[in-house]
This record gives sequence, C-alpha cells and structure tokens, in this order.
Amino acid sequence: METVKFLLDEDRIPTHWYNIAADLPSPLPTVLHPGTHQPIGPGDLAPLFPMALIMQEVSTERTIEIPDEVRDVYRQWRPTPLYRARRLEQALDTPAKIYYKYEGVSPAGSHKPNTAVAQAYYNKQEGITRLTTETGAGQWGSSLAFAGALFGIEVQVYMVKVSYHQKPYRRALMETYGARVVASPSDETHAGRQVLAEYPDSTGSLGIAISEAVEIAAQRDDTKYALGSVLNHVLLHQTVIGQEALAQLEMAGDYPDIIVGCTGGGSNFSGIAFPFIGAKLRGERDVRVVAVEPAACPSLTKGRYVYDFGDTGHYTPLVKMHTLGSTFVPSGIHAGGLRYHGMAPLVSHLYNLGHFEAIALQQLETFAAGVEFARIEGILPAPEANHAVAGAIREALRCKEEGVGKTILFNLCGHGHFDLQAYMDYQAGKLKDFEYAEEEVAMALAGLPPVNG
Amino acid sequence: METVKFLLDEDRIPTHWYNIAADLPSPLPTVLHPGTHQPIGPGDLAPLFPMALIMQEVSTERTIEIPDEVRDVYRQWRPTPLYRARRLEQALDTPAKIYYKYEGVSPAGSHKPNTAVAQAYYNKQEGITRLTTETGAGQWGSSLAFAGALFGIEVQVYMVKVSYHQKPYRRALMETYGARVVASPSDETHAGRQVLAEYPDSTGSLGIAISEAVEIAAQRDDTKYALGSVLNHVLLHQTVIGQEALAQLEMAGDYPDIIVGCTGGGSNFSGIAFPFIGAKLRGERDVRVVAVEPAACPSLTKGRYVYDFGDTGHYTPLVKMHTLGSTFVPSGIHAGGLRYHGMAPLVSHLYNLGHFEAIALQQLETFAAGVEFARIEGILPAPEANHAVAGAIREALRCKEEGVGKTILFNLCGHGHFDLQAYMDYQAGKLKDFEYAEEEVAMALAGLPPVNG
Repeated sequence: METVKFLLDEDRIPTHWYNIAADLPSPLPTVLHPGTHQPIGPGDLAPLFPMALIMQEVSTERTIEIPDEVRDVYRQWRPTPLYRARRLEQALDTPAKIYYKYEGVSPAGSHKPNTAVAQAYYNKQEGITRLTTETGAGQWGSSLAFAGALFGIEVQVYMVKVSYHQKPYRRALMETYGARVVASPSDETHAGRQVLAEYPDSTGSLGIAISEAVEIAAQRDDTKYALGSVLNHVLLHQTVIGQEALAQLEMAGDYPDIIVGCTGGGSNFSGIAFPFIGAKLRGERDVRVVAVEPAACPSLTKGRYVYDFGDTGHYTPLVKMHTLGSTFVPSGIHAGGLRYHGMAPLVSHLYNLGHFEAIALQQLETFAAGVEFARIEGILPAPEANHAVAGAIREALRCKEEGVGKTILFNLCGHGHFDLQAYMDYQAGKLKDFEYAEEEVAMALAGLPPVNG
Repeated sequence: METVKFLLDEDRIPTHWYNIAADLPSPLPTVLHPGTHQPIGPGDLAPLFPMALIMQEVSTERTIEIPDEVRDVYRQWRPTPLYRARRLEQALDTPAKIYYKYEGVSPAGSHKPNTAVAQAYYNKQEGITRLTTETGAGQWGSSLAFAGALFGIEVQVYMVKVSYHQKPYRRALMETYGARVVASPSDETHAGRQVLAEYPDSTGSLGIAISEAVEIAAQRDDTKYALGSVLNHVLLHQTVIGQEALAQLEMAGDYPDIIVGCTGGGSNFSGIAFPFIGAKLRGERDVRVVAVEPAACPSLTKGRYVYDFGDTGHYTPLVKMHTLGSTFVPSGIHAGGLRYHGMAPLVSHLYNLGHFEAIALQQLETFAAGVEFARIEGILPAPEANHAVAGAIREALRCKEEGVGKTILFNLCGHGHFDLQAYMDYQAGKLKDFEYAEEEVAMALAGLPPVNG
C-alpha cells in the first residue's frame, strides 16, 4: 500500500505565528496577581520572562513574525511531513480520509522544540544566560536542553522525582545536551524544602517542580523561567504545525471536517487546531474539533472554569482556566505530558465558548490504538499522542457506521522511543485504567483561591 | 547559525539500486559450501533466501530496479535529509566543509529499513509467511519487525541474550511491531541447545544467534532467513543512501573529497560510499574513503582476508572476507552493531584491492565526538554512528592543520534514542577503551577452515 506523504519546501516554513487572540469573540479574562488578586501588567512578569515573550503573551495582533534565527533552526526538521494514513483507513475499513501531521521528526522527538527554540532565542536576545524549567516525562525538558545547547544558554531542569528515577534515559538525553537536571522536590529551593519537610518521601509533581523553577528564576537577573505549555506565547509558537498542515492539505486538495488533538496543558492541541479554529471564528470555514484528554486527568470534561494557580506552591499568577485544582495530583498514567491539573487559558476560553468538543479516554484504549497504529503505519507514537490516535480511530469508525467519507486530521505530536517501558507494561497486561479521583478533585477545588467568590 | 539542509523531492528517491559488482576490477572470490568446500550456486541458497534476492546476490548488472512497492514504503521517510554541519565546522574552526546524510529519520531510527523493507517485499512475493533473523543491539531486529508488520510477514528474532536482558526497550519495540523475540542461545534450536549444554550461562553472540535463525529457516518451506548486513544484496539495497547524497551534493554544488563511514558488517558504509567508489572505479571522479571500525573489533585493520564462516555454528557458506575468526567474541563495547567478527565480502574485496583506507577508534573518543555533535548539531547519534562522527572530526581537524578546505561527507546512520544507557555510563565515567584481544583473535584465526590451506 502506497505511502502518501505531503512535504512542503523549506521556504514554506511559516514566516509568522498565528495569534488566535486576534480572532476571539470575547477577550481572555484578566490575569491576576497571586498575592493581591489585582490584574497584573507586563511588568509583573518581567522577573520570569524576557520582554519579547511578555509582549507576545498579551498581544492581540493576528500574526507575529518569526525571527529569521528561529526559522533557521526550525529548518533542521521543518516543515514536518503530513501523511495520509491509507493503510490505517484500509484496516479500519472506513470511508473517512485520515491525515496526520508528524512532529516526532524533531531532534527531541516531539513538537516541544517549536517553542523551546523560540524561547531560547528571545532570552538570548535579552542577555539571559540561564533558563530554569520543570519537566515530567521529559519531553519538554529535553527540548529546552536541545534549544539551550544551540543558543549557548545554560539550562536547569527540575524533574519530577518519580520520573527522575523511572526515566533515567530522558534525564541522560538532557544531560547529554548539557543541561543540569535536579530531582524535584529538591533542597535547592524554599518550595522544595517545604515539601520535603512535610513529606520527606515526596515523589514530586509538575506543580511542585514549577514552583522550584520559578523560585530560582525570580532570584537572579541572569536567569529566567521557561514553560512548555499553557501560556499564550507557548501556544502561539506551536501554530506553525497547523499552518503547515493547512498548506499540505491544500496540496492534497482537502480540508478537515474533523480535527482531533490530545490535550494536557494544551500546546500541541493549539498547534494543530488554532489556525483552523481561527478560520472558523472569522466565519471563513467550518470545522469540528475534538480534544482528547486522559480520563485520569480530565480538566476539560470534569474540571471547573475558574481562577487557579499554575503551580502547587502558588507562586504563579492566577489565571482563569479549566482546572481540577492546583493541589490535585493525577494518577500515574504513562502519558506524563497530559498529567497537569489545568488547561491553557486560551484553550479553556474557547472551550467555554463552545468552539470545540472534548472527550476523556482511558489508558488501555489509547495504548491499544498506539500499538495498532505502530503495526499498521510503522511509527510508534508517544503515550500522549496515543490519545489523538485513539480519538481519530473513534471518529473514523463513526464515519464507517454513518457511511460518510469525512476528512479527519490529527497531530502525531511525538514518537514513543523514550516510552517503551510503558509499551512493555501494556503488553504484559500491567497497565490499568484509572477513574479520576473524584473526591480528591473535589477537595482540590474546595481549596480554590477566594477570588472566585 | 543557519541550518543548511538539502532535501530532494520524493520523485528523486532512486529508481534503481547501484550494484558495485558491475564495476569491480576483479570479480569477488567464489562462495564455498560449508561442508564440501566446493563453489555453491544459487540453488544452494534457496532454503534460506527467496530467489529474487539470490539473483541480486550474484548479479553483475550495474543497476537493479527498485520495485514500486518498495519505493512506496521508502517514501515514508525517504529521501532523507543531507545537512551541512555549519555549526560543527565553526566549533572546530576548520576550513573543511562537513556534510552528513541523516538516516535516523526512518521509523526504526536507522538505515536498516532500507534493506528490511526490500527483503520483506521479495519474501512476500514468493509466498513466504515467516522470517527469522538475529539481532544484537536491536537496530536490525526492529527494522525487520517494522517491515514484517507492513507486509504481513511473521518475524522471529533471535536476540543475543546479553542484549535481550540489557536492552529490554529494543525488545519492546520489536514486540510492539508484532515480532516474536527469543533470547539466544535458546533451547529452540540444535545450535542453541549445543551451546547451552556446554555453557549454560552463555550470554550469546551474533554468531550464535545467526546459527539459530538459519537453522529454523532451513527447516520450513514457509520460513526464510533475513540478514541485516554482510551479504551483497543487503549492501545493494543500502546504496539509496549514497545515490541520494550524490544528488543532494549536486544541489549544493559540491562533491566529496573524503567520505567517512563506520563499519561493522559493512552495510551502512557501503550505502554511503559505494556510489562514489563506483565512480572512482569507472575513472569518472576520484574520492578518498575512510572506514572507521571499533578498536575492540578491528576486522579490516587487524583481521585476515581469508575464507571464514558467517556464524559460530558454521551453518553458513564460507565467504572470503576480512575476519577476526568466526569464534572470536568482541569486548562489550556499546556500538553493538559494529561487533561482528567479519566484514562484508564486497567491502573486504575492495579494501584488499586498496580502494579505501580503514582506521580503528577507541570507544571513548567516539563517545566524546557523539556528545560534542549532539550539543552542536542537536542530533544524538547512535554509538555506531559516533565512529563516523569521530572519523569526520579527525579529518576536519587535519584539514585545519593543513589549511585546506576539503569537502567531507559522512553518514549519520542512526539516532541514539535507544542507547541512552551507554551515554549515561559514558558521562558517569564508566566506559572504557578496549584493546582487541590479540590472543583470542590469534586463537580464532588458528581455527579457520582448512580451505585456506
């Protein structure tokens, strides 16, 4: 069966990021100061981010030019291929057309370098010599380590302790790129020491690791903080994915009826979907968009749309988002990149306005889909990406039931080369499904900041 | 610093493999029957290989057409990119131009699928439903598992026992693609049982695993054997690499003065170098070619050019090749793909005729080169590929010393995502250099078959 691949010439790497803020039917809710609960301005973020990124965070310009230096690095692996999954269509016996964009060709193996490179560049421009960040499974940490190596910026990664020990190879990749990796909670920060004092055996969480990274960055002028998802500027940088997909589908003479994306913090979902949702918001072209989240961490389908912190230590500003509560610690599913209590404010806002749907899938269904995909299409997806694969298969089977030949697009956001323990456990029957812990979420939500009234 | 990448359109995937046998100044020495020591004909190989591959094995046609079905699968990741390593050139402060072809973009992460796909296709055409093979580090086994999944052929991999236990993730990848993986020596074969009877704790070797895979294939009509290197048809299939590189260098307005390739069995070296060595043999264009082998397994620089077996159990035909003796077991360096006692007959013949040079490098130098490359160019090479990187760096530094701006081409044959234990050990100071075991080689060579006189 023929491979159907759509490649763009490298001069078709987007010249601008697409900023969906320009097309929102109503503006994003204000960001609030964590202490005063008053609206914050760009200056309040200056200890953590370079001004260029802060201006992107608050921009409402529809397009923002990508610096040549960033496009020059993108060129190493972009434009990424768009495939038509003909073999999968045939195996499912569906009249649907299934296309997937493949971001696993980046040196770090996922879509994360799209923003890591941009963030490293802007920090370098403003004289920053060190970046701190957090990482769970390690996709983000290794991407920032890669970008730091290219731009000569020191990178310090607070890695959730359980992953630090369980995923030594991800750590080794970061260290090979020259990053310093610290198990979090650590005794290097006030936030870490506080957790360790109360829970000496704490295995850590993304929320704690964020607190540590933010604390260090806030202390020193030569050091800033970098986040791999959630924030507006991060989502902005990922829109190169959807813009390329749009051009590639044009080559194929197609336009998606349905877009499926997996959601953790929201960056890969935004990357593939925002350019299409933007066209819908502008009344140009309709599209149905489905976000797929893990049942163990269902911030869109089960969370509340309220103000919450981005971290456990409550150092970050308060943002309005779909959240399970910033103290909620999701079960240990293998899709570590989707284990975050909140959802990006932009994604939350659009969901609240009804511009896309969301479903929550169980772990076993997503791994079954990943194994099927690997055998049929030849590419082993990351556990996070398995959620998109499973969602796309559901849609394709629905098309079969209904006898309609719709066009489905999804983003295969990364490969699973670093996740083979999860595949081993799945094949050995050791993985299980997780209901999300309803009482724990209720408890976490009960502790929301009083600003929610 | 700008990324300089040369991409070919997919209609530039080569339509033919290049067969260097057509351009040899003298023919390859005859292949001998392992029992009778008489020359063998195509029919003798029929229990192990489909006739189409046997005919390629003995062909002297300069070009052999690539079936459309094989090119259709190649299209998933081919043409692979050619990069100019501008950042590395700058870091080395060399007047040399360094280009590298990157084969790590294949779904299995190395150049091995180039032949795995072709072999699976021809076996499928001849009604074969099962393939057996051996694998050490797992690059080859996972490539054949991938190809088997695409063509609906069952794959059974005898994996060297020490790797089976040390590299469970490689095994998991093969199993995810649907292959059956057996630790070798096993009790499933006469060859395996014989070894286990004598050495119950044997950790296995490629030579033993080959014996097991060959034994099983020879027993059943529906089962054939597949080899990932050494044989003429395997080297033939890899020539897509060099042919693409030639076209890409033409785009760059360049031609290599020096080609560097790492050598284990010889397939990746042949893939990048044969199209250029062919042009040299035909008197069209000169080129200097350097093979880089591990000091722990130096078949070209320290082996003898004699008739030897391909396996330990002595099931395979006798071929004339540079060998350290088929019973020699190399030290446990991490470049598992380079741990083979012999060298492909075609490569050995060309070396014997003086058409290229060879050097042997120590493990630590190759890992230092790999880490430097990852930090500067952003791609983490496999330990095997580190030999090519180190060789290219040596040549670039020599250009600097001599003040000459030569053009260097090397093949980055695979990524190191499955080799992070090796990088961890390297960074922890746990890796060491290995002299090859001179007495063991002497002993292994003393046991060469009497056909050598």
